[in-house]
Amino acid sequence: MLKFMEITGSNKNSLIKDLKARAIETEQEIILSVSNILSKVKKEGDKALFELTKSFDKIELKTLEVSPSELDECFNSVEKDFIEALKEAKLNIEEYHKKQKANGFLMTKDKGVYLGQRVLPLERVGVYVPGGTAAYPSSVLMNVIPAKVAGVDEIIMVTPPDKDGGINPYIGVAARIAGIDKIYKVGGAQAVGALAYGTGTIEKVDKIVGPGNIFVATAKKLVFGEVDIDMIAGPSEILVIADEKSDPSFVAADLMSQAEHDKLASSILITTSKELYEKVEVELERQVKALEREEIIRASLKDFGSAMICGTIEECINISNAIAPEHLEIMVDEPMKYLGMVKNAGSVFLGRYCPEPIGDYFGGTNHVLPTSGTARFFSPLSVDSFIKKSSFIYYSKEAILENGEKIITLANKEGLTAHANSVKVRLNKNGNL
Amino acid sequence: MLKFMEITGSNKNSLIKDLKARAIETEQEIILSVSNILSKVKKEGDKALFELTKSFDKIELKTLEVSPSELDECFNSVEKDFIEALKEAKLNIEEYHKKQKANGFLMTKDKGVYLGQRVLPLERVGVYVPGGTAAYPSSVLMNVIPAKVAGVDEIIMVTPPDKDGGINPYIGVAARIAGIDKIYKVGGAQAVGALAYGTGTIEKVDKIVGPGNIFVATAKKLVFGEVDIDMIAGPSEILVIADEKSDPSFVAADLMSQAEHDKLASSILITTSKELYEKVEVELERQVKALEREEIIRASLKDFGSAMICGTIEECINISNAIAPEHLEIMVDEPMKYLGMVKNAGSVFLGRYCPEPIGDYFGGTNHVLPTSGTARFFSPLSVDSFIKKSSFIYYSKEAILENGEKIITLANKEGLTAHANSVKVRLNKNGNL
Repeated sequence: MLKFMEITGSNKNSLIKDLKARAIETEQEIILSVSNILSKVKKEGDKALFELTKSFDKIELKTLEVSPSELDECFNSVEKDFIEALKEAKLNIEEYHKKQKANGFLMTKDKGVYLGQRVLPLERVGVYVPGGTAAYPSSVLMNVIPAKVAGVDEIIMVTPPDKDGGINPYIGVAARIAGIDKIYKVGGAQAVGALAYGTGTIEKVDKIVGPGNIFVATAKKLVFGEVDIDMIAGPSEILVIADEKSDPSFVAADLMSQAEHDKLASSILITTSKELYEKVEVELERQVKALEREEIIRASLKDFGSAMICGTIEECINISNAIAPEHLEIMVDEPMKYLGMVKNAGSVFLGRYCPEPIGDYFGGTNHVLPTSGTARFFSPLSVDSFIKKSSFIYYSKEAILENGEKIITLANKEGLTAHANSVKVRLNKNGNL
Repeated sequence: MLKFMEITGSNKNSLIKDLKARAIETEQEIILSVSNILSKVKKEGDKALFELTKSFDKIELKTLEVSPSELDECFNSVEKDFIEALKEAKLNIEEYHKKQKANGFLMTKDKGVYLGQRVLPLERVGVYVPGGTAAYPSSVLMNVIPAKVAGVDEIIMVTPPDKDGGINPYIGVAARIAGIDKIYKVGGAQAVGALAYGTGTIEKVDKIVGPGNIFVATAKKLVFGEVDIDMIAGPSEILVIADEKSDPSFVAADLMSQAEHDKLASSILITTSKELYEKVEVELERQVKALEREEIIRASLKDFGSAMICGTIEECINISNAIAPEHLEIMVDEPMKYLGMVKNAGSVFLGRYCPEPIGDYFGGTNHVLPTSGTARFFSPLSVDSFIKKSSFIYYSKEAILENGEKIITLANKEGLTAHANSVKVRLNKNGNL
């Protein structure tokens, strides 16, 4: 099912082009409609939220906030093994993200000078969580836990109400386990607007994170600057590097684990063994039939699946570096030997028993990752996504007396005499007085 | 010259609105013209650069790259005291930014599991440097040094040629002192296009940083995603908190040091002393007459300058937190006592002898800072701006045997059976086989 590619000078580029070709431009019509929704929310606040929810979600809400007893009910209506697994996942994710916590620093210098950098949590963060069939409780953990660990004061979740005016119980359970402060039943562009501008009920946040449909993504882009946002994720991708000893059933299963997300998902196999590739093709055909999303998987593999044979694992990694995949599996013995060669990849899964879903659900690393080759310059969602830095500096009178002339020289060369003047007035040269 | 504001419930909001009102929307016409330039550069490469340079800069270049001997000449044509001051500034900036360098981490767990995060420098970065009258050598240091410290392999500078086909000598000197690898004589949107897409001569970069006019800023916005960019800076602002012991000549000089940047710059005084405010007004009038940019300063103070009296320094800081200024000066004794209360500010200048230009030129902190209240969620340019993170995880067979069922439970609840399948095939349950 994979497109077989011979190694040539240009096929890195053609693969990169394929990845990028998956991006879909937002239609003017959607931008306009989202922009109208945002204006309405900005102007009318809660009133707009109730009206838009009635119109889009076909439900007349009395209150926006989810009550503690509604959350209790969520816990009663989901399976115990799900709750236990989610709690354990939470602990793993928390343990990993705590290691990301950065500290500020202070430097002291001669003449009483000191300077440094503080690391401060954002004060209030909004998390968008889709409802309906695209409800992913794992995504609640992945977006909320880094913010919690960063020390964010208040984390607000928005999620669309279901047809009975409730919320998806798995989402409710995940929200309480993750430690969300408040949940509001509102979805779509109107929810993004509420978080960005604030309404009577919902307080304005500093940053909005979380996945959503094209309306949500467009709304996030439009409010960017008013608040910060996370990256807008493109379709998912996986690149599997495998040697001749790899189990073809593992390779095939892993390629399909991303292919099932979306017809636009991309699954790439780069291997040192043509024989393995041929066996993987057989396995794909055999396994796909029993998977619920067979149709999506077939479409995705056909359009954006490919396979390539390289002479060595090092060569495989070189090609992967040019592609900069969201997920990279290195299915070899002693995989740590190769990690240092990996320059561009969102998250790397090492060894024969580490399929990518371990990272999606349980292992501890974050599953919000840079897509479409942006791992060249973007990073996984992390504690750093929920902090800001602020620098500070103190100069004594003695220090400015010593260094003032140099600063005046530099400012004057840039034609900024008022900058120079602020130093001059302190050198008792009376500035321009 | 400052608008005097009584403390009321809403004046934080009115000040914030003032700051935001300074943002100017980019005209459709500019977007279109920039978009055309970018397409031309993408399609025609170097040829487009030569043509556009001829058309916009009125100069016919033979080669784009600045030669080592041209750089030598820059050093011959600028003052020695400038070179010495810039070299000392470089050391201070480097020393400060080295403290920002983050490390990755590794965690080991039971059953051979390990996971962690690597911190990797971007491979190639482009720095835009304006030419002509807006040539700021300090800005070269501020944009390049963090990238150098981060470990970026190659740093490329682009700057428009002057009317004789050379570059601004101060910029040339700053580039060599900062450690730029290559300099190309190309400016405007075409330079941004060259960095984003690559041409025959100029290699594609991972991130573009540096200030520029509206065409440069628009081009950066349009190539975002293809490459990363830094923030698009708005007009500058300064907020001075001063007590009754503050020297009014210092306060006035500092307010004007930002006012001179731009008619849209904003200078705000918040003080515990009405008497000080009155003396500052006298000083503004007295000092402004001798400053080169008197007209800009008067316009900026008139439109976006304001003053407010508070009962205590704590109250002053509370208002400042709501405004989230780019530059905050705290002109009091023992200023460190107050630093912990500051929640939102790009860079904080402490004490009576620390005017903001110390940070612009010499002290060590970065002068590329979040404007227009975005210090609520954005950070100063730093070493972190030039790195990406990549996570990794290893699972052993024993570890997946222990945890596999939980992962399967979570994946199935999300309806992602191919995710579950990638674990099942490894549990020797033959997946769906």
